Amino acid sequence: MEKIYTQSLLYDFYGELLTEHQRRVYEEVVFDDLSLGEVAEELGISRQGVHDMVRRTEKALDKYEEKLGLVRKFLSLKDKVNEIRELTEDKKIRKLAEEILEEF
Amino acid sequence: MEKIYTQSLLYDFYGELLTEHQRRVYEEVVFDDLSLGEVAEELGISRQGVHDMVRRTEKALDKYEEKLGLVRKFLSLKDKVNEIRELTEDKKIRKLAEEILEEF
Repeated sequence: MEKIYTQSLLYDFYGELLTEHQRRVYEEVVFDDLSLGEVAEELGISRQGVHDMVRRTEKALDKYEEKLGLVRKFLSLKDKVNEIRELTEDKKIRKLAEEILEEF
Repeated sequence: MEKIYTQSLLYDFYGELLTEHQRRVYEEVVFDDLSLGEVAEELGISRQGVHDMVRRTEKALDKYEEKLGLVRKFLSLKDKVNEIRELTEDKKIRKLAEEILEEF
């Protein structure tokens, strides 16, 4: 799986458990593709400080996944729900399947 | 919904995020129905200490639910999957539906 996809899923599931500061730095570096230098300047900290914060945030997200396994469960859920959609033409069932995927 | 059921769900989803000590005290008081006095004696702390720890653990669990909403999402998933099961006799679909519920 692409690293950026895994990172997005981890962030979707556990981002709320991070501090606002962690979220901001992580989003800017990982999703908005700003350079460490740009983020460092914006926040008035060192490039190394930004780098460390991103690494610590990654570790925190991995730790949450280790404990709760939501990304793993969600991917399995998605596979199973998609299988259900492929197995039936029933509109009600297909609608429920879509609602399930949207909710997570 | 019965309080004990909500407590079980919250604990199932977020228990791993608690400390081992929190888990032990919470389990003994809430699920094993030991008295505050019994748990206090066992751990060598005051009844008030046990009481406070249970309250703090409840608050922590509520906070996680506020942030991640897994219990709410799970209950909605369960409803939808059960609806799917009622809508079809297709064995493959029903098996997938059961697997989904078992996984969470």
